[in-house]
Amino acid sequence: MKHARIAYQGLVHEAVVAEDGIQLNDGRMVSEDQAVWLPPVKPNTIFTLGLNYADHAKELSFSPTQKDPLVFFKGPNTLIGHKASTMRPSDVAFMHYECELAVVIGKEAKQIRKEVAYDYVKGYTIANDYALRDYLENYYRPNLRVKNRDGCTPIGPWYVDKADVKDPMNLALRTYVNGEKTQEGSTADMLLGIPELIEYLSGFMTLFPGDIILTGTPKGSIDTAVGDEVVTEIEEIGRLVNTIVGEEAFLSN
Amino acid sequence: MKHARIAYQGLVHEAVVAEDGIQLNDGRMVSEDQAVWLPPVKPNTIFTLGLNYADHAKELSFSPTQKDPLVFFKGPNTLIGHKASTMRPSDVAFMHYECELAVVIGKEAKQIRKEVAYDYVKGYTIANDYALRDYLENYYRPNLRVKNRDGCTPIGPWYVDKADVKDPMNLALRTYVNGEKTQEGSTADMLLGIPELIEYLSGFMTLFPGDIILTGTPKGSIDTAVGDEVVTEIEEIGRLVNTIVGEEAFLSN
Repeated sequence: MKHARIAYQGLVHEAVVAEDGIQLNDGRMVSEDQAVWLPPVKPNTIFTLGLNYADHAKELSFSPTQKDPLVFFKGPNTLIGHKASTMRPSDVAFMHYECELAVVIGKEAKQIRKEVAYDYVKGYTIANDYALRDYLENYYRPNLRVKNRDGCTPIGPWYVDKADVKDPMNLALRTYVNGEKTQEGSTADMLLGIPELIEYLSGFMTLFPGDIILTGTPKGSIDTAVGDEVVTEIEEIGRLVNTIVGEEAFLSN
Repeated sequence: MKHARIAYQGLVHEAVVAEDGIQLNDGRMVSEDQAVWLPPVKPNTIFTLGLNYADHAKELSFSPTQKDPLVFFKGPNTLIGHKASTMRPSDVAFMHYECELAVVIGKEAKQIRKEVAYDYVKGYTIANDYALRDYLENYYRPNLRVKNRDGCTPIGPWYVDKADVKDPMNLALRTYVNGEKTQEGSTADMLLGIPELIEYLSGFMTLFPGDIILTGTPKGSIDTAVGDEVVTEIEEIGRLVNTIVGEEAFLSN
């Protein structure tokens, strides 16, 4: 089942998405043109993996020299829903998309072994973890400006129940810019898989229901321009649509 | 005025703290031995400065090579209140305290100039931003294990209204371990002051009411041991008490 959060008629609703439309939890069906897609989860903590695909690390000429995985937090200000716009700041020369599988935590997880890690997963969604590469001074923990502009992380449109995804470690990821495919990879190529990430993180801190782990992106990140429509797609989950707008247009909205 | 959050008789209460005791917002007076001090704020985002005092940077032999300030996020799992215990993991050789002035944001702040930055401050509290130095591989953004164990950041006991602090950029900070003074400094020695930090952060992301900025620690961080009572004190604000416990004692609580 696909679970969404929808703003409709002045309220935020939990909803499920089926072939024939969006059904609010109160039973009403709404059409997409009357509704606003919100991020499908409200995490306390947003974990983000840097360089968790070998091919992407290679494309950035990155050689790891440290032992801990490159995990950092994002602020909750970064999340926006499906079909929203993300601002490209006027002063950057390189803003790239990153199609990522996002894991939604389902129950409190503390010191969980990887063998049972999936018991703590509620489902999966899609994130587009835009990066402002101009600001990047250090791969190990990107400074806040690289990854924390307001609304720089579209997520959704919904999360899919764990039971509806056959093998989360074998899903195709694709990104399309203005209809042209520009990125293609598979979650099978992650360096640290979902069980390993949950074991590592829950080993020193508690994960809470609704928290999300953005698991990194494969190679194929290219620059995006104002006006681009960027679609990040993951097999068995869906397609997340985002549009890039300029700083002036965004601030005058 | 001193604003606290207090757990008492099965509920969480907002409270004010006066000479004669703790007054819940419903008017009842409670004594400290009946109550549990909680973190005085519930931030969406916890900003933390690394190496924001020149003397502390020097004591760690740190030479900055990057342009952006060393700011990172902490998870909400890290905060605990006054008089609570913080766990020292069994596998670390060096866990140091860090007495820090924490700035509480009072209203939504976006692209704020430093000249008006204090308009967006609600008040000030004390944080003890413990660091597990064993895990540190890179000063620029400490990996999550250094700064994100559950309960590794005591905060409180209360926040003090902005109007009650004469000059937040000229406050003495002191830490006492088992009654002996081990750290002393002044907020006057911050490299980036409160107005500069608000200008920098709000320049690329929105700060929200209740968010906090931990502004860094002066020199004098030393190792702490199981059983230590660590008091971090800031002039005009108060004294925050914390006790270090071992991993087994903590997990069996």
